[in-house]
Amino acid sequence: MHDLDWKPDKNLDEPLYEQIKQFVIRKISCGEWFLGFQLPPQRELALYFGVNRSTLKTALEDLTADGILGTRGKSGTYVRNNTWSLFRKPLSPDWLKYIRSGSLSPNREITRSIHDHEFSSNLIRLSTGELSPDYLPRNSTDRVLENLIAGGYSLGYDHPNGTIELRESLVQYYRRLGVEAKLSQILIVSGALQAIHLISVGLFPKGASVSCETPSYLYSLNLFKSSGINLCGVPCNGEGIDIARLVNIHKRGSTASHYTIPYFNNPTGHRLSDRKRIELMETYRKLRIPVIEDDTYRELYYDEERPLPLKASDESQFVIHVGSISKTLCAGLRVGWIIGQEEVIRKLADLKMQIDYGTSSLSQLVLDSLLRSGRFEENLSNLRQTLRAKRDLMHEILEGEFTGFAEWTKPSGGFYIWLRLKNLADIKSVFEYCRCHGVLINPGYMYDPKNRDAIRLSFSYVSDEEMKHGLSILKDAILSNTPRTL
Amino acid sequence: MHDLDWKPDKNLDEPLYEQIKQFVIRKISCGEWFLGFQLPPQRELALYFGVNRSTLKTALEDLTADGILGTRGKSGTYVRNNTWSLFRKPLSPDWLKYIRSGSLSPNREITRSIHDHEFSSNLIRLSTGELSPDYLPRNSTDRVLENLIAGGYSLGYDHPNGTIELRESLVQYYRRLGVEAKLSQILIVSGALQAIHLISVGLFPKGASVSCETPSYLYSLNLFKSSGINLCGVPCNGEGIDIARLVNIHKRGSTASHYTIPYFNNPTGHRLSDRKRIELMETYRKLRIPVIEDDTYRELYYDEERPLPLKASDESQFVIHVGSISKTLCAGLRVGWIIGQEEVIRKLADLKMQIDYGTSSLSQLVLDSLLRSGRFEENLSNLRQTLRAKRDLMHEILEGEFTGFAEWTKPSGGFYIWLRLKNLADIKSVFEYCRCHGVLINPGYMYDPKNRDAIRLSFSYVSDEEMKHGLSILKDAILSNTPRTL
Repeated sequence: MHDLDWKPDKNLDEPLYEQIKQFVIRKISCGEWFLGFQLPPQRELALYFGVNRSTLKTALEDLTADGILGTRGKSGTYVRNNTWSLFRKPLSPDWLKYIRSGSLSPNREITRSIHDHEFSSNLIRLSTGELSPDYLPRNSTDRVLENLIAGGYSLGYDHPNGTIELRESLVQYYRRLGVEAKLSQILIVSGALQAIHLISVGLFPKGASVSCETPSYLYSLNLFKSSGINLCGVPCNGEGIDIARLVNIHKRGSTASHYTIPYFNNPTGHRLSDRKRIELMETYRKLRIPVIEDDTYRELYYDEERPLPLKASDESQFVIHVGSISKTLCAGLRVGWIIGQEEVIRKLADLKMQIDYGTSSLSQLVLDSLLRSGRFEENLSNLRQTLRAKRDLMHEILEGEFTGFAEWTKPSGGFYIWLRLKNLADIKSVFEYCRCHGVLINPGYMYDPKNRDAIRLSFSYVSDEEMKHGLSILKDAILSNTPRTL
Repeated sequence: MHDLDWKPDKNLDEPLYEQIKQFVIRKISCGEWFLGFQLPPQRELALYFGVNRSTLKTALEDLTADGILGTRGKSGTYVRNNTWSLFRKPLSPDWLKYIRSGSLSPNREITRSIHDHEFSSNLIRLSTGELSPDYLPRNSTDRVLENLIAGGYSLGYDHPNGTIELRESLVQYYRRLGVEAKLSQILIVSGALQAIHLISVGLFPKGASVSCETPSYLYSLNLFKSSGINLCGVPCNGEGIDIARLVNIHKRGSTASHYTIPYFNNPTGHRLSDRKRIELMETYRKLRIPVIEDDTYRELYYDEERPLPLKASDESQFVIHVGSISKTLCAGLRVGWIIGQEEVIRKLADLKMQIDYGTSSLSQLVLDSLLRSGRFEENLSNLRQTLRAKRDLMHEILEGEFTGFAEWTKPSGGFYIWLRLKNLADIKSVFEYCRCHGVLINPGYMYDPKNRDAIRLSFSYVSDEEMKHGLSILKDAILSNTPRTL
């Protein structure tokens, strides 16, 4: 019936299925197998070709994916397309399959959408956890670069823990905060996010749980989920985390660690009180769990005196301290650090060597010079004044315009106001309304999957004018999405 | 018999096992439970306390780990230590348990050992895949930094794919090589190692196989193993990879991709011929698999004309091209890039945002200026001359001193000579002998677990004097470890 005396040749380099594909294409291109032509059943074809059913299926599936063959009903395969263009089209790998594979899963859709908007448009960014480029201490960094040129520098691979110079500067810096760290207890990383990534893949087995405040910055990341670690949210009250609930969760015994931003929390702006700090440290100590202290915002206090990191009262060495300059100097240098027990740091340093072989030497050189020269502290003190003024302006606008339908706590440091809407509005519609009117906000459900009534507002990036305009758009968005019963 | 009318209180914040521990400590510290005192059987104790056996076990195990209790025989628990110091010792988390957990496994022991030696001693580094700090084009980088100061710069978060400026410079650079890439097809990363890490966690499922040449740089990394990906080595002959074996491996159908360093391979120094390149590209195309092209060394040609990357003849878009400046300019800036199909790049950019939120802006600014000003090319041309002279010197010493017992191919580019020993010496002893005499080498088994007769020698880092001295030590090491039958 069919002229199928041809068989693929097992001695050729070309895989059998590829030879079959080429055979089918020849049949179609010479017109013998015309448009709509029904191929013999798969079982029969496999017998003719002298190959396994699976080899045959691979060939037919490839040709189907390329749009050359089609399927009808159970096993009917027919010629779907015979245009030359298809045959000549270079056959690239099935990229979609590769993109959908991979052990690390993609970011949440809302996170990716915000990344895209932030970089591809001129929206007013009430969303952005970043300092305005205007606050970069250009003068200081210029002087540091000049000194580098005059004094010489090397840009080779560094010690797995980071440059000795920068680690020495950090030892000095932390000594003033009451933290005694050895050089071998410090690991330089590329920002706090990388620190959290290293900790999550380096210290916890898949399936472990880590507790955190709700809402928490961690929920906006995909890091833990990607490493197979479950987040276990602990509710907060006005004073911060609910200690009884925290203890209860850890009593069950399967929770490996606790993550916290003690000062000027992202997203809530909350500052841990001294009383509560002592109580919490005692709790952690009793639970005997490692605590990941994300110290990113602590230096940005502007109402009260400088808070001390948890690490400053950590005689038992259970705190893994994560520091960064992304919020206190600039994000673009991509420098952060981890301070912890020596063996823990050794393990994390080894992992860092595996995944990127160290942090930019040039960035480390610049930060080291800024710390040594006192310019880092000088800039911080200016930054606190700037941010206080920004905070005051946002608070003032909110008091004037939002009091009827929203509530918030005036933060004493950091970047954020956590705005809670008194009457349920549809937050997704609020987000969309703002975006369409040129304003970007971070909806609360980014930080707590169950949250439907909060927005994280950032006052660190926008100009005064942008803030005023942005908040007036937000007000319209909320009111036009609040039930009429108001 | 025992005064055990006490029971832990379920209403307290403190976990039950912690309350039991404190009770036991009180009993010991008041002297009631004296040194050597035998505790009641666990079953009995659990009943007395009204708790689960598992809760009791947790308490006793903790106290045993702390050295306070000891065990004898099957279930006998006794007081092992009653010194006050133990009770007062702050109880830190069980760090060893955490260090042994983690989804990412540590580097191979030989790799960690070499990292340690490289940074902690003054050994002669015939091992190091790095440019000597003397070759850093200080003059060029100084001018670039001066221009930055004069012209202004920003150091905020960048676009997820890297700065537009640097990607534009790379588009121009690659256009001259016959590669047409769009901005959205380029992702800036922190060195080629991070590129490979992102590809391994982003595109392949756990359990996938990736083929590579044997020996291969990949074997010296733990990256693929950590991501659950198997390496499938393909033997090489004088002309490079054995194509028939490559096809055979991929015919079996489970191999997801192929990794290759086409030019001046690490560790063999091999350069792909034009004829073989065309043959290989045709093979990849037929197999329809993505090829990871590690292009790290290609620019370091110094005998023949500039080789073209595989990406230059990639109409079907199956090449994922990985570039870096770590070997051609300096390693410390930590800048590399990936060029590939648009959707693939989008996925990898999203993952990079998850794990470190981008590469140092300052490093990107410096590289961009070097590329735009032509200083990058200028430096490359000097570097080729320097490396050629280094290669000549090493080849000359080997010809004079090693001809009788070793063989190698004179490389026409790159950093490495792959030295094969004619008579089996104990490579581990050779490594140890060298190390004890102040010389570091990379044994061949780092790049091929089965290899027992090769050493990777690098001529990119050492001074002429160090090279002469280092090789004479190596000669002694080999001869004193070669069987007498020679």
